[in-house]
This record gives sequence, C-alpha cells and structure tokens, in this order.
Amino acid sequence: MNAACQRLTARFARIATLGEASAMLHWDASAMMPPGGGPARGEQLATLAGLQHELLTAPEVAEDLAAATAEGEWGVANLTLMRRAHARATTLPTALVEATERANAACEKVWREAKARADFALVRPYLAEVVTLQWETAQALSAALGLSPYDALMDGYQPGIAAADVEPIFAAYEAFLATALPEAEAREARLPPPLPLEGPFPAAVQRALCRSLSERIGLDYTHARLDESLHPFCGGTSADVRITTFYSEAEVGKALLGVLHETGHALYERGLPAEWARQPVGQAAGMAAHESQSLIIEMQACRSDAFLGFLGGELHAAFGGAAAPYARENLVRHWRRVSRSFIRVDADELTYPAHVILRFRLERALIAGELEVADLPGAWAEGFRRLLGITPPDDAQGCLQDIHWHDGAFGYFPSYTLGAMAAAQLMKAARLALPGLDSAMARGDLLPLLGWLREKVHAQGSRLGFQELLRFATGKPLDPQDFLDHLRGRYLG
Amino acid sequence: MNAACQRLTARFARIATLGEASAMLHWDASAMMPPGGGPARGEQLATLAGLQHELLTAPEVAEDLAAATAEGEWGVANLTLMRRAHARATTLPTALVEATERANAACEKVWREAKARADFALVRPYLAEVVTLQWETAQALSAALGLSPYDALMDGYQPGIAAADVEPIFAAYEAFLATALPEAEAREARLPPPLPLEGPFPAAVQRALCRSLSERIGLDYTHARLDESLHPFCGGTSADVRITTFYSEAEVGKALLGVLHETGHALYERGLPAEWARQPVGQAAGMAAHESQSLIIEMQACRSDAFLGFLGGELHAAFGGAAAPYARENLVRHWRRVSRSFIRVDADELTYPAHVILRFRLERALIAGELEVADLPGAWAEGFRRLLGITPPDDAQGCLQDIHWHDGAFGYFPSYTLGAMAAAQLMKAARLALPGLDSAMARGDLLPLLGWLREKVHAQGSRLGFQELLRFATGKPLDPQDFLDHLRGRYLG
Repeated sequence: MNAACQRLTARFARIATLGEASAMLHWDASAMMPPGGGPARGEQLATLAGLQHELLTAPEVAEDLAAATAEGEWGVANLTLMRRAHARATTLPTALVEATERANAACEKVWREAKARADFALVRPYLAEVVTLQWETAQALSAALGLSPYDALMDGYQPGIAAADVEPIFAAYEAFLATALPEAEAREARLPPPLPLEGPFPAAVQRALCRSLSERIGLDYTHARLDESLHPFCGGTSADVRITTFYSEAEVGKALLGVLHETGHALYERGLPAEWARQPVGQAAGMAAHESQSLIIEMQACRSDAFLGFLGGELHAAFGGAAAPYARENLVRHWRRVSRSFIRVDADELTYPAHVILRFRLERALIAGELEVADLPGAWAEGFRRLLGITPPDDAQGCLQDIHWHDGAFGYFPSYTLGAMAAAQLMKAARLALPGLDSAMARGDLLPLLGWLREKVHAQGSRLGFQELLRFATGKPLDPQDFLDHLRGRYLG
Repeated sequence: MNAACQRLTARFARIATLGEASAMLHWDASAMMPPGGGPARGEQLATLAGLQHELLTAPEVAEDLAAATAEGEWGVANLTLMRRAHARATTLPTALVEATERANAACEKVWREAKARADFALVRPYLAEVVTLQWETAQALSAALGLSPYDALMDGYQPGIAAADVEPIFAAYEAFLATALPEAEAREARLPPPLPLEGPFPAAVQRALCRSLSERIGLDYTHARLDESLHPFCGGTSADVRITTFYSEAEVGKALLGVLHETGHALYERGLPAEWARQPVGQAAGMAAHESQSLIIEMQACRSDAFLGFLGGELHAAFGGAAAPYARENLVRHWRRVSRSFIRVDADELTYPAHVILRFRLERALIAGELEVADLPGAWAEGFRRLLGITPPDDAQGCLQDIHWHDGAFGYFPSYTLGAMAAAQLMKAARLALPGLDSAMARGDLLPLLGWLREKVHAQGSRLGFQELLRFATGKPLDPQDFLDHLRGRYLG
C-alpha cells in the first residue's frame, strides 16, 4: 500500500479504537451504570461519536482516498470499505445529522410513554419528523452510493443485499406460511400438552449453567464476560466481548436460550480476523450476517433434537426434581412451540418472519412516501391480519412495540429474517461438510460447528458482501429454500 | 467571558469528557475486564490520552489563551488553570513525552518481577532511565512554570505547595516521632493484648455492611457503585463514582476501613461544584486535598472513639458471636495500633508519615542529581533506620515496595502526609464549628461533618490552591500542629 493508504489505515484504526471505547461505555450503561450516571454518559458517547465523525470527514481523508492504492484481495476490500464509510459520513450535511439525532432522541423518549399508554397519537408527530428526516437521509445517501433510497438505508445495516433481492424471498415466505402455519398448528393440537417446567429456577444456578454452557460451546472467558441487563445483548469488542441476559426465577428457557443466542454473536466477534483488527474489512459483515451467527447457535444447533437431548440432562442435573420434564421430547414441545402472537420478540421460529415482512413492507412504504405516519396503525393491523390472521388489540401490541423506528432505524428489520435464512443455509452446508455434526451436538459438542463457522464466516470479516459470503461458505447466494426445508422438517414433519 | 474564552471553555469541556471516558475504562480494567482485554484496553486509553493532548496543544489554544478574558473569581481562576494545563502540556517535547511513557511502561513491568524476587539490580537500569527522563521533564517544566524542578513535578499532583513548605514540616514531624513513637509503644505494651476479631467474615455480609455504611455516611448510590478489585481505589467520575475494595474472609477491618476511606474520596468527587463541571476549576484541588477528604472520613471520623462505638454495634449485628470483641475499646486496640513496619500501605497513622518523609527526601535527591539510582537501596535502608529504627531485610520490603517511582510518579508521595495533616486541621475546625459533631458521630451520623466539608472544601473545586483552601476552611494555611495534637490525643494521652 502507498503512503496515502498507510495514513488511512492508521486513521481508521484510531476511529475504530474510539468505537471500542464507546462500545465499552454502552455496555457499562446497560449492565453496570448507576442511574444518575446517565446524562454524563450521554455526553461521553456524543463526544466520542463527534470525534469519530471528525476523524472520518477531515479534508485530508478525501485526498488520501483519492490517492490511495492497496494490494491483495483484503487490502483492496479494505480500501473499498473505507471509501464507502467516508461517502456515507460526508454525504450528509451536518445540519441533517444533528436534526436527525435530535428528532430520534425526542421521538424515542415520547415513544416510551406512548407505548406504556398504548397511545399512538402521542408519538405520531415525533415519528412523522423522524420519517421525514430518514427520507432526506435516504435521498442524500441514494445519490452518493448509487442505491435506491431504501437500499441506501439498508446498506447502513447489511451491505450487499437490496430490497429487490428481499422482496421475492419474503413473498415466497408469505405463501409458504399460509399453508405451513395452520398445518403446524394442527400438528401441535393433536399432541397432549407438554409437562410443565416447574421452577423456581434460582438465578445463581441459571447463571452458572449459562456460563458453563456458553463456555462449552466455545466462548473463552479470558476474553468475555456474562452479566445482567434489562434487555439482553452482545456488546463490547472483539478482544473483550460482553454478553448479558436477564434471569427470571419462574422460567428457565428465556435466559438460557438468550445466552446461547448472544454467545453466537460473541463467537462471531471473537473469530474476526485479528490481522485486520480495527480496519473496516476486519469487522463483521453486517447485521444479517451477525444474526445468522446467533441463530445458527441458538436456533439451528441448540434447539436441534441432538442438542436438546444433551441440554435436558444438564438442566436436570442443575435444577433436580423429576427427570421427565427435561426429556428431549418435552423440551421440544416447550422450545419449538408454534403460536400466533402479536409481539415479535416473543415469536416462534415459524411466525417470526411474518413480523419482519410486515415491518419491511411498511417501512419501505413510509420511506417511499406511499404511506403516511398517521395511517401506520391501520396499515399495521391490516397487514398483520393478512399475514397471521389476527388483529392486535391495541397499538402497544402493534406498531408501538419496537423501539427501532422510533429511534430512527429504518432498513434494519430485514436483517433478522435474512439472518435466520442464512443460518439454515449455513447449517445445511455444515452438516454436509461435517458428517458427525449431529452426533457431536448430541454430546453437547458444538466445537466442530464452531470450527467450520470460524473458517467459513468469522475469519472472512467483511472481505465479502452478504451474498458473496454465503456463496463462499455454502456454494450459493441466499437460498430461502434451505430455511423452508428446515422449518418443514422441524414443524411439519 | 469573551469569544476566545468561550471557545476554550467548550474545548476544555470536551477534553474533560474524554477524561471521563478514560476514567470509566480504567475502572473497568481494574474491576470488570477479563484478562484478555488488556492489550486492546491499553490502545483505547492511549488513543484517548493522545486525543486529549492534541486538543490541549492545538495551535489555536495558545491564541485563544492569549486573547481570553474572564469575569468573576471563578472564571478568572478557571482561565488561570487552563493556562497552567496548557503550559504543562506544551512545554514538553513530544519525543520526551513518548520516551517517558515507554520508559515508565518498561520499568513498571520489570519492577513487578524485581519486587517478586527482591532483586533491585534487575530494575536498576530501567529506573535510572525513568529518573533521567523525570529530570529532563522537571527541567523543562521548571523553566515554563517558574518553579524549582522538583516543585514543578509536585505541582502536577498538588498545586500550590512547594518543597520548601514541606521540608520544615517534615523535619518537625521527624523530631516529634523520635519521642512520640517509643512513648506510644510503651503505652501499648502496658495493655493486655486485644480480644481477637475472629472470622470467618463472609464476603457477602462484609459487602452489604460496607455498602450500607458508606450510604449512611452520605454516598448516594444512584451516582455510585461499590465493586471489587485487587487494589482498592476510587475512580469513575463526579456524576458516577466507582469505589472498589477487596474482601478477605479472615479479616474484617481491611475492607471496611478501606471502603470508608474510598467513600471519603467519593464524597469529595460528588460534592464538586456542578456549575463548573468539566472545567479545570470544577475539579478537585489536588492529590493532597483529595487525601485529606479520604482521611478525614476514615482516620479522623470513622476511627474516632465516638464512631467506633457505633461501628462495633453494627459489626456485632452483622457477624454475630460474642459482643466483647466489638466493644469500642477493643476496636480501638485493633484499629489504632502503633507498630513499626516496613510497608507503607500497612503502616499506622503515627508511623505512616515517616514512610512518606523518607520517600520525599530520596526522590528530591534523585531529581536533584544528588543521589544515584544505584545507591538507592543503601540510602533507603539508612534513612529508614534513622526514621523508624529498623532496617528492611530486603529491597522488596524497602525501595521496591511501591509502584510510584517505577511508573514515573515523582513528587506524589508528600500528598499522603499533607493530606493527613490537612484532615486533622479540617477536623479540628469542623469540631469548633459543629459542637454536636462527636455526639452525632457516636450515633453513626456523619452528615453534619459532610455538610461542613461540602461547603468548605468540596464546593470550592480548584478555585483556591491548597494553602488558600485550608485558610478558607480553617482560617490558616497548613498547620501541622493540629495533626500532632490529634496524634498526641490518640496515641500518647
């Protein structure tokens, strides 16, 4: 690489290092910080974000990007990603960025109240302002990136896949669900109810079990922590990853499966290519790619027949009592149950995509100016009924349930389902590559799977776009058929 | 204030905000971080420090400082402190700063090994390099600040007091100790040994007691946390202060008194003037001032006859067993025991200053070029024998015991004893101002004392130098007589 590229490499490393500091402060704010620390923490994070933005948009960056040359596939990909990050950051006028931040913060605050009261009218003007500014942002990014406005927003979360790719996939899923859902429900209705998993499940025992299971499936706690927060997440940095969960003593599945999910995210972060640490190409390949890694661990591996057999034994050993509730078939009945529900985060594997499809269509229409914010509750109820056959009783269980839009995140939702589909596709490829995979999982051994993921996904960083990454790992771009096959096997078999 | 001063105010707020981020990351590194996070954390802290330095030394700062005008005592003091911070930061050539950082880091690393092996020769060349660079730093700062070289180093820790002020105070203390120490020992020898405080003291019970006591004496946990770390400290920020301790189940005093000490530091941070937050004048008035606040809580208040009576009841209630060991007189025997020892951090109130006096004299001689690093072990042993009448059996219990010099901290040590003296002086003034103080302390109520400290010390920020602050609070500059009176009353009475 030439001198310009060397300067850029040092600058992007500095920007990424500030990003690491922010990530730790975000984790602390959720997992550790006393409530009185909030305003000061907000200032600290804003200052760090401002400095990152200044470093990325300084005049000499454009000059260096124009002059920079890089060698090798990784070097070239890194320079391309630098150019895209710079284009995204410089395209938006400061006034628009600031107006967006203010509008998002104001809307998010009112949204909490509106959701608690199930009163959409309260947040409507704030959300309208957010949407207007997202529209302006999308227009500006669209011109700079050569993408459609909505795709330019999606690109901020998952580069390398467009709404035009997503649309037919989602339409096909809707058609599949129309017959699959009643069929799965009928199948479930024929079975007797499962034996209850009766608590209390002491938090300390859950904590120890969550930790030992996440360690067993490959998380190295010399580079990780497991803590508690209201909303579970995976944060921190690649070298020091922080996962959180929330323990309810009445229920054992939520924290446990949640920790396995976050462990999937954490393993991805841990497996990123160290030689490209703090460079754009060394980062995860986007939110859909990230979700594929949490879901392949949680949904594909840990909720598999093979692993649930092992897991039941661990649960029984940890909590004692009768063995029958922890038998594999009974755990399957609890943790692979299908039911139509209004809340996305509580949805099962089969109906979850319907929640995402609805949001994808509505947010596209909002950004395209084809749907007014005032008409959102009606469009939501109508769309929900069409997809899942039920109508939310109020907006708290409808369009007010998620923070995303109210915090200015448009173009994010598809990542959840793209990730679920990619996870199924990756699992199918892993099973082909590793014939003993299910026997290993039945012994609680996910290390063969992890080894394969590290090589095929984690170590690839952002060298490849989403579709190219899937092609590299599985021989083909995103193919929803693998997800449908997986669902058929699990829910309609 | 004019426009230049407004720009400076915004810039110093930004620098301080980055300092807050660093403070949180330092706390995390000691209290939370998994070991594998170390190298990345080092990068994060170095990047933040580099940015703070760049912001402080940017060319426009000198211009603005030349043009700035400020109003009011606080505004003027703030501008003066900005000028001093800028002078300190710009005086040192980057090459010297970088060489110092490298030499300190290298020496500190080798020092750990040298201390473990009690082998001074191992660290000697590294320490010699550290001292050489400190000498260069002191020369450069001396010229810029108009202070003697050693005073210029002291000024980095405790502005407003010079070696020439300290020297006669320490000489007088040495003379006092020559008769007071044998007398205190003889008095102690006449008494029967105290009843043992027999554990185990469960860590969870200690933790709950430490928290409730620190809360009782005024620490508001909506703006604070209490955690664990190998070396107890008070970190974080004024709005979000983090104290740590280390629990040994065999012993109850160490963690408890340690938490009360750190609570004193924390209360100072909490009480700083919010209207000057993130400005130089809004910060604590130096390390000696800070130590006065931890010691007035721990040594003056919590080890007072009055409070120990209350504390004994709390301990007995928490740990059960026989009541007699927790009687006030027995706690006094444990927690106000005088004994000559080699290790500063384990020293009692009476002999602690001797440890500091020795270090003050040796570091001054090192910086003045009057003592060679190679001669340090001998000079230490000789000085220790002269002050305390005993000779360390090896260098691990002598000149290798503290991290300070090996990490490049010269001019810091006097703060400990200046703080102890200031604490006694402040306590005497508080007793005069608050006639019911000891009765309140006997009920475990330190809030009257805290109210007085808030007004007289905490709320003053850095408006006043160390001597002026004491004059403001007590009517006179540092007067070691109050400390001697306190010690006479406690150990020779």
